Amino acid sequence: MKKHNFSAGPCILPQEVLQKASQAVLNFNNLDLSLIEISHRSADFVDVMEKARALVLELLGLENQGYTALFLQGGASMEFLMTPYNLMKQGGSAAYLDTGAWSNKALKEAKLFGEVNIVASSKDKNYSYIPKGYTIPKDANYFHCTSNNTIYGTQLKSFPKTEGLLVCDMSSDIFSRNLDFSQFDLIYAGAQKNMGPAGTTLVVVKEDILGKTGRDIPSMLDYQVHISKDSMFNTPPVFAVYVSMLTLQWLKDLGGLDAIEKINNEKAALLYNEIDQNPLFEGTAAKEDRSNMNVTFLLTDTSKKEKFDKLCKEAGINGINGHRSVGGYRASIYNAMPIESVQVLVNKMQEL
Amino acid sequence: MKKHNFSAGPCILPQEVLQKASQAVLNFNNLDLSLIEISHRSADFVDVMEKARALVLELLGLENQGYTALFLQGGASMEFLMTPYNLMKQGGSAAYLDTGAWSNKALKEAKLFGEVNIVASSKDKNYSYIPKGYTIPKDANYFHCTSNNTIYGTQLKSFPKTEGLLVCDMSSDIFSRNLDFSQFDLIYAGAQKNMGPAGTTLVVVKEDILGKTGRDIPSMLDYQVHISKDSMFNTPPVFAVYVSMLTLQWLKDLGGLDAIEKINNEKAALLYNEIDQNPLFEGTAAKEDRSNMNVTFLLTDTSKKEKFDKLCKEAGINGINGHRSVGGYRASIYNAMPIESVQVLVNKMQEL
Repeated sequence: MKKHNFSAGPCILPQEVLQKASQAVLNFNNLDLSLIEISHRSADFVDVMEKARALVLELLGLENQGYTALFLQGGASMEFLMTPYNLMKQGGSAAYLDTGAWSNKALKEAKLFGEVNIVASSKDKNYSYIPKGYTIPKDANYFHCTSNNTIYGTQLKSFPKTEGLLVCDMSSDIFSRNLDFSQFDLIYAGAQKNMGPAGTTLVVVKEDILGKTGRDIPSMLDYQVHISKDSMFNTPPVFAVYVSMLTLQWLKDLGGLDAIEKINNEKAALLYNEIDQNPLFEGTAAKEDRSNMNVTFLLTDTSKKEKFDKLCKEAGINGINGHRSVGGYRASIYNAMPIESVQVLVNKMQEL
Repeated sequence: MKKHNFSAGPCILPQEVLQKASQAVLNFNNLDLSLIEISHRSADFVDVMEKARALVLELLGLENQGYTALFLQGGASMEFLMTPYNLMKQGGSAAYLDTGAWSNKALKEAKLFGEVNIVASSKDKNYSYIPKGYTIPKDANYFHCTSNNTIYGTQLKSFPKTEGLLVCDMSSDIFSRNLDFSQFDLIYAGAQKNMGPAGTTLVVVKEDILGKTGRDIPSMLDYQVHISKDSMFNTPPVFAVYVSMLTLQWLKDLGGLDAIEKINNEKAALLYNEIDQNPLFEGTAAKEDRSNMNVTFLLTDTSKKEKFDKLCKEAGINGINGHRSVGGYRASIYNAMPIESVQVLVNKMQEL
């Protein structure tokens, strides 16, 4: 049965990527060896790592501008502590925008390293909007924001100017739209939405911002150590990096960020239009802040829940239960989600 | 062409594990979804994680003794800093046995947290033996050792008694032999030798040793946080955990640690006997400390190198180049390596 996978992450990946990944587990590059049983120092795998790192900078338009791409481990959660370790000066401070659960987890870790200034929060309305018009303290070493809030279905459409460094957790919308990525000094993202499987974390960092905190940083948490070893300070998560490379190549072949942004806009418009027009549904996020990746909505008449769930299940729709903090439904429509699957969901909403 | 994969790690895995892993990337548990695109909170994946954690304790004979198994990220290198973070008291100290490159990396990270006492080192003879007869300071919070030295081909055959905690990096020989594992308080191991693919790190920890350092530990580095979330504090490396679970199940079906130890002893004896009997070869490690996982040896007449390399290549022998610190050859004969492949190598040594 054809499934329509709306999971929030780990999530849908392109079918051709899954096919190639499956094959590589049996026989990689016609070596008569599995991808996962060769040395990470072999020419075949070094080539994968270098290709993946180069594709990241190419897709983001950040080549030759002093940025490095790293494939690390530990998810965005590890970056929550690596960010202050690498960027917050001894006795310094950082500014955080609180737009949801993940922003909160990030700033909680930063507090272990110094003063954290929460410049604004949308907690007052269960994170259903993105705060605007806040002021970032001039002496903050960096400003941290979460570009897309997977749980609450909100997304930053623009980013503030700041005198310090600009840091962004893009775990759930990286590679989904074009931005001027050179405005950021540090971008990080768990792979398991638009980039690949769970198990690797992308870090894109401007090299000249590093080494200025006066801290003794453990090797594994030090971006400069990973840069000096070309992202292979220790054994990298081989499979996750390979699948990420395949996914990035798929995106490049599709036309890159401008092309995928157009498709993503169409998918989001299709679903949000239905939510707005169908009296049985309502969106949870402020319209101007709606995410093009995670579409959160409620039934206006909750007695219809059983019927709607049944309709969805019969149609092969998977993973649309909302997060417990919001309730209702959440349809995640990441890059690899075909518009046909969104149409199937819309059809069921109409059928209800 | 049939390859004989002697890679030091990532390394050979059982063929049936590779087959199942490849299939799961296409369609996992007949869900019509890939293993790598389902939620890590789905019942299907939670079952994988719990099964993997239970198999670890079962195989090590550590069930119901206060131990927890965790599947984390970052490799043994991340454990080099998590160990002191979680076990070295503020103002405390730790004792380390220096048996090679990895021991050294471990103690280097510990120095960031407090006093490190190197109780003995075999650096004087290029780490070709395991020091014995050393004294562990009574006030050391823990004693750390590396059970198998992948690069130098040495292995600890027994472990010292200590008043503090006993910590062991078993990355390259865990699940290869039976030991009284209850003598250890903390065991860690990167997966990519006997347990699975690169991308996850096994931690087996006695719960009652934790929470006693007086340190503020960042969440991702805190074993207690990971324990409280059943090893799913954040998105785990789904694929690596699944393949580890399959490999652990394969080992259990084979008869567990006693069964594999017998096979590993036979494989090692076959190869070491040839090294000792064939005048063209010599081992590099002290005989009583020889590793049953990584067999390091040199040609006595280096002019034969080209011929031997050619013989090996023609026979499909892969990954036997020695590490640059030792030179010569290193045949890694991990659990999944069939004795037939070791015999092929021995045949080529005889042919030379």
